Amino acid sequence: MSDWENNVRKIVPYTPGEQPKEKNIIKLNTNENPFPPSPKVDEVLKDIKYTDMRLYPDPDSTELVKAIANTYGVKPSEVFVGVGSDDVLSVAFLSFFNSEKPVLFPDITYSFYDVWAKVYGIDYVTVPLKSDLTIESRDYVRENGGIVFPNPNAPTGLLMSVGDIETIVKANPGSVVIIDEAYIDFGGTSCLSLTKKYDNLLVVQTFSKSRSMAGMRIGFAIGNEKLIKYMNDVKFSINSYTMNRVTILCGAAAVKDQQYYKDNCARIIKTREHTKKALARLGFEVPDSMANFVFVKHKTASAGEIFEELKKRGIYVRHWDKPIIKDYLRITIGTSSDMLKLLGTLEEILGKDTSQVF
Amino acid sequence: MSDWENNVRKIVPYTPGEQPKEKNIIKLNTNENPFPPSPKVDEVLKDIKYTDMRLYPDPDSTELVKAIANTYGVKPSEVFVGVGSDDVLSVAFLSFFNSEKPVLFPDITYSFYDVWAKVYGIDYVTVPLKSDLTIESRDYVRENGGIVFPNPNAPTGLLMSVGDIETIVKANPGSVVIIDEAYIDFGGTSCLSLTKKYDNLLVVQTFSKSRSMAGMRIGFAIGNEKLIKYMNDVKFSINSYTMNRVTILCGAAAVKDQQYYKDNCARIIKTREHTKKALARLGFEVPDSMANFVFVKHKTASAGEIFEELKKRGIYVRHWDKPIIKDYLRITIGTSSDMLKLLGTLEEILGKDTSQVF
Repeated sequence: MSDWENNVRKIVPYTPGEQPKEKNIIKLNTNENPFPPSPKVDEVLKDIKYTDMRLYPDPDSTELVKAIANTYGVKPSEVFVGVGSDDVLSVAFLSFFNSEKPVLFPDITYSFYDVWAKVYGIDYVTVPLKSDLTIESRDYVRENGGIVFPNPNAPTGLLMSVGDIETIVKANPGSVVIIDEAYIDFGGTSCLSLTKKYDNLLVVQTFSKSRSMAGMRIGFAIGNEKLIKYMNDVKFSINSYTMNRVTILCGAAAVKDQQYYKDNCARIIKTREHTKKALARLGFEVPDSMANFVFVKHKTASAGEIFEELKKRGIYVRHWDKPIIKDYLRITIGTSSDMLKLLGTLEEILGKDTSQVF
Repeated sequence: MSDWENNVRKIVPYTPGEQPKEKNIIKLNTNENPFPPSPKVDEVLKDIKYTDMRLYPDPDSTELVKAIANTYGVKPSEVFVGVGSDDVLSVAFLSFFNSEKPVLFPDITYSFYDVWAKVYGIDYVTVPLKSDLTIESRDYVRENGGIVFPNPNAPTGLLMSVGDIETIVKANPGSVVIIDEAYIDFGGTSCLSLTKKYDNLLVVQTFSKSRSMAGMRIGFAIGNEKLIKYMNDVKFSINSYTMNRVTILCGAAAVKDQQYYKDNCARIIKTREHTKKALARLGFEVPDSMANFVFVKHKTASAGEIFEELKKRGIYVRHWDKPIIKDYLRITIGTSSDMLKLLGTLEEILGKDTSQVF
């Protein structure tokens, strides 16, 4: 080991889902949207002049921020944008979780939370899910230095009501509560309305799931303008220009075309509900996911083995070796054709018949 | 003040140069390149399918990393890429400046260094420049927790020799030395060759200046693969997918077209040398900048006043209120036509004649 290595921040990083380079894979492992972005994005992309790339982008991403503010009926000063919701959450952790008391999040949840806590030296305590995999809101009414969880939760897909979220936010005026709504557009009710009433609630959303733009890296947060100001102070202390010219323009075009995305979400929800039934017939326990994925456990077969068998046949889903969830698979909802192929392949692996479900 | 505000990380952010939205401004304030990116970038941009945006980008930015590695004759494992060199430097600060001893950088330098140090809680000491505004390499041979400076230095434009850099790197085996070569392509000699010999040297470069792509946010670092591995561990602990699909493809196309950029840099260097002479004739002291800007002080007129007068006439340059450099203006080298307009306007303001310089 070289001398300088004594001063290095050593950390075990988050492992993202595989991004296979092979073609003809059915990719149900990273909750991407099976449909393309709005055609309005294509129009904007075609109009972009490469000659403009020589100039810095607008550091405030004004056009994108305004488009989001208009869509959600808030002020631009109540919107923060970042390089995917991971960037937004990372800045929020750094900005708001700066207490001596531990931050709270569920033991089974988005597996990036503990990584951010470790990299930024934030103390945290994980709160167990209930036996039905739901989050108990009363568990978050106790001393803490901040609260964060996704709603619907990842990777379970299970939703908490806006009323239960309000209980948590109201009970914790001394903490910032971050609700990560990456999957809210697939059937849940957003708690955005609560941001008008509580100045300690930050709601984070992304363009990567319902808006089919994972490849462009856009996330945002909405909250009281004091929260957004603090986040911008931290953001501008790390990187003034995070959103590039193409991203700002394409993102603004996307968010203006709400109906297109609502229709796609409706199609994904329909496919999800069909898929749930088919998986149940194949012997899976299927919690009632409200996201664009299902989190399922087979009654007899091993999740690890199903994962490997699917992969051999060109279907990628997600499996974690973590003890409490090692019996589960997380399967993204693709097109109905993707799901038919998945179900046919599962039949083959498990020796069951699910025909006539779609 | 709300209760939760007690737990907020409060910080004074970096102030980037103005990005005016008005047209017809001569923008010489943020060191952008007056020429467009390579036409190869345009070809790639036109070929991008918006439908691909639904999928996450390659988290390793393989295509861009390989193109940079090929161009600089290093291995892909010796290259780190980020959202502009600010992102790269920020990750490097977080990764390597994790000692109890203070990090060293010049008192007059890129004004983001102390901001990163503050946001990440890194102890630092600034080292005064010599009276001729150069950096004394021997000042960096002392106990420290890391060293960082730009070469050429910002905002002076003054260059340190590769030999002097080697003295610093060699004398500090217990620290990582970061050389920020944002402006190296405008006449300096890169210290990249030293990365083959020393495992504690990290060289950072950007696509924002010589490669005319400030608007796309691409920076990179080259160093020993151990350094790059540590940086990737930190990067993957903050945001797995920082570089979007468009950026990866456009960046790779750009870096492959070296000759185009070399020719542009030669033009900018020629314009810079003419501009230096003309400014000297106007009564400015003109240190020998090797960057795409000059840092100048008028013998009699106030820098703040010249700055305001230029702005009134639609020419933006940069001025800092910081005591030691308040008498200086930093002026980006634009096209020769931009510089003629600048010089004509300065003549008007100062009442001098600089005709026949270009």
